[in-house]
Amino acid sequence: MKPVPLILLTGFEPFGGDNINPSWEAVKHLDGELICRHRIKAIRLPCVFHESLAVLTEAIDRHEPVLVLCVGQAGGRSELTLERIGINIDDARIADNRGNQPIDTPVNASAPAAYFSTLPIKAMVKSLREAGIPASISNSAGTFVCNHVLFGLLHQLADISECRAGFLHIPFAPEQVISHPGNPSMALETVIHGLRLMLATAATTATDIHESAGVTH
Amino acid sequence: MKPVPLILLTGFEPFGGDNINPSWEAVKHLDGELICRHRIKAIRLPCVFHESLAVLTEAIDRHEPVLVLCVGQAGGRSELTLERIGINIDDARIADNRGNQPIDTPVNASAPAAYFSTLPIKAMVKSLREAGIPASISNSAGTFVCNHVLFGLLHQLADISECRAGFLHIPFAPEQVISHPGNPSMALETVIHGLRLMLATAATTATDIHESAGVTH
Amino acid sequence: MKPVPLILLTGFEPFGGDNINPSWEAVKHLDGELICRHRIKAIRLPCVFHESLAVLTEAIDRHEPVLVLCVGQAGGRSELTLERIGINIDDARIADNRGNQPIDTPVNASAPAAYFSTLPIKAMVKSLREAGIPASISNSAGTFVCNHVLFGLLHQLADISECRAGFLHIPFAPEQVISHPGNPSMALETVIHGLRLMLATAATTATDIHESAGVTH
Amino acid sequence: MKPVPLILLTGFEPFGGDNINPSWEAVKHLDGELICRHRIKAIRLPCVFHESLAVLTEAIDRHEPVLVLCVGQAGGRSELTLERIGINIDDARIADNRGNQPIDTPVNASAPAAYFSTLPIKAMVKSLREAGIPASISNSAGTFVCNHVLFGLLHQLADISECRAGFLHIPFAPEQVISHPGNPSMALETVIHGLRLMLATAATTATDIHESAGVTH
Repeated sequence: MKPVPLILLTGFEPFGGDNINPSWEAVKHLDGELICRHRIKAIRLPCVFHESLAVLTEAIDRHEPVLVLCVGQAGGRSELTLERIGINIDDARIADNRGNQPIDTPVNASAPAAYFSTLPIKAMVKSLREAGIPASISNSAGTFVCNHVLFGLLHQLADISECRAGFLHIPFAPEQVISHPGNPSMALETVIHGLRLMLATAATTATDIHESAGVTH
Repeated sequence: MKPVPLILLTGFEPFGGDNINPSWEAVKHLDGELICRHRIKAIRLPCVFHESLAVLTEAIDRHEPVLVLCVGQAGGRSELTLERIGINIDDARIADNRGNQPIDTPVNASAPAAYFSTLPIKAMVKSLREAGIPASISNSAGTFVCNHVLFGLLHQLADISECRAGFLHIPFAPEQVISHPGNPSMALETVIHGLRLMLATAATTATDIHESAGVTH
Repeated sequence: MKPVPLILLTGFEPFGGDNINPSWEAVKHLDGELICRHRIKAIRLPCVFHESLAVLTEAIDRHEPVLVLCVGQAGGRSELTLERIGINIDDARIADNRGNQPIDTPVNASAPAAYFSTLPIKAMVKSLREAGIPASISNSAGTFVCNHVLFGLLHQLADISECRAGFLHIPFAPEQVISHPGNPSMALETVIHGLRLMLATAATTATDIHESAGVTH
Repeated sequence: MKPVPLILLTGFEPFGGDNINPSWEAVKHLDGELICRHRIKAIRLPCVFHESLAVLTEAIDRHEPVLVLCVGQAGGRSELTLERIGINIDDARIADNRGNQPIDTPVNASAPAAYFSTLPIKAMVKSLREAGIPASISNSAGTFVCNHVLFGLLHQLADISECRAGFLHIPFAPEQVISHPGNPSMALETVIHGLRLMLATAATTATDIHESAGVTH
């Protein structure tokens, strides 16, 4: 009997003074679920440069997933945004949860400048929009721990074609914007619904669709 | 036996090319509910200058509410916003649902320039924020049918101290921003939860709290 | 020989921690200029509730202007915005320059709820746009000293039909947004150019044009 | 006698329905100027995939610059933004000026995923801010012709260490936002002043400064 293929889903611990991180609040709800005959394994990453990647690498080695989706908070964005690319740079505006604040240092000095996500991001955005969930492609995951994890993840998997991987940024949860006034938010239920749709699409889409989602700048 | 006091809650029909208006979608869920010993009566207003007020006036005359909260869609806003003031002007950027597009004409030529909402708006915002729902005071309801209804409502009730009234603007629903990309949205569940909290606060607060919620411009 | 009619133009002193206030930087450049046979008198108002109005009233009494345009800074706006209405409320988010922070108190307890600007604001916006200067109508001057001055000014002149008056909000100057990152700005030269155009239009336009400039909310 | 080293400065022709492109309006003013003993050569690029790069390559071959700064319009941004990275993808939301609309195709199928700008972008941003000009680092040049040119430029120069290169995005000109209402703008004079400062800094800075300018997402 073939084992059930596994999807590794990660969220982050809170950072930057917030009490919660909506990425982990959403992700943990899906732990153990079966989506399109794939089992979800949810884990929480520390919001710390390098340590986050160590935890992620250990989980990949242990669970041998066929798909990895890392999820992080993008305060200020109003949509679910699937990242197109991870870049080989750490440039921290604030300190991480261990006090590290690297400036213009590579994530990995012996790695290329960037990797493109290997998820069918256009098809995933389409499935979200068809369900009435605001979504788009993002062309920058920033230069903090989220991009660090995305780049490190794609570098690690660069030669393992069996496992596809990428990153999703989500808005603040409504309760967070009480102390971040003026920012958009998204209900946890919407994020969880979106995660199920995206993972179903990713699990069943071998080749991404050919549809424009570019920006002029 | 004293009759149960009534709260009149209104939403609008869709306008401006949208298929739904989240104000009516939310409001209709509360029809018939009992909140702090007040019965909710929900009605839908046409998005038409003057006709909207005629429907509202007829409902006030029939139901003799102690509280009126009109709700409208404010595409682009990210919070529940309670309006502070209605002003005596119609200046329509787009036509209403009957093709009317008044420009710089008073709502009522024999009425004053403006009326302040008589709801405890600061207490209502506070109760929302304490529940983790993004909310703030707005100092302009615009110059379209929403402001028209707010001004007409307050003018009609100006001499009836027993009935307090005001206006709430709500964000787009998530599904609407698929065709209004880049705009913030709010889940229907969050809006409905917020409505219950606001009405409970309004029903039980005689005098508004003394708390700054101003803006420099 | 008839005396030259006078236009009173006011700007504000800095507030809220800024070193400059672009309203005074722009306004002072026009002091003494002749625009369409009107002499400009520029004065600086303190950013203080009531004291600002005392200074303004004194200047109106002394100079007997035919036109008054008060100018203030609206950090975060990207255009020149002509205010449509002043409302009878002080609700200060921050303290003024003398430490006053009124909350929900009327500017004048014996005055009406609001006054509309008596300037030809639609014609003024049109003249700006035709010259390539970003401009629009605003329906709220906020609840701080700017609105306080606008309301007090219009109340004082309510029975003096010979003098028309209103308020203009301007964006941050470019140098200010270094410490207010992410905000739009406008070059001082553009503001000064705009002021000349607006004053020329106001001085020569008896009746405002009939053109929509409304907002749905 | 040593020849004067040359800085190649490029702007774009208008696109997307606009009558002007502020990048060319600004850049052409500096043609022939001497900045820190470097001569400026300004050329205009077509807003066309590949054709833009052909024109740029021809100019580099002819003029043998020591520095190349390509400038493009980023409608909606409020600051001068120096791009950190160019990525190997064309994904056009709109057609270019020849009707090409590539979707998810590489700029160059045999090139790496991305290149980092070789300009001292942190030092350049610092010199702008010290002069009161709004500026920041951007981590995405989009997926249209601007990014196409940046990526192609950096790929071409990847093995030529003597020539440093990068890309600057600038806001709309004020006159453009009349037809793009609500967007920030920047006066042409401010952009030109900023270009002189940036080129002086780039020409005289061998190693970039170590200063955080990152974003969390």
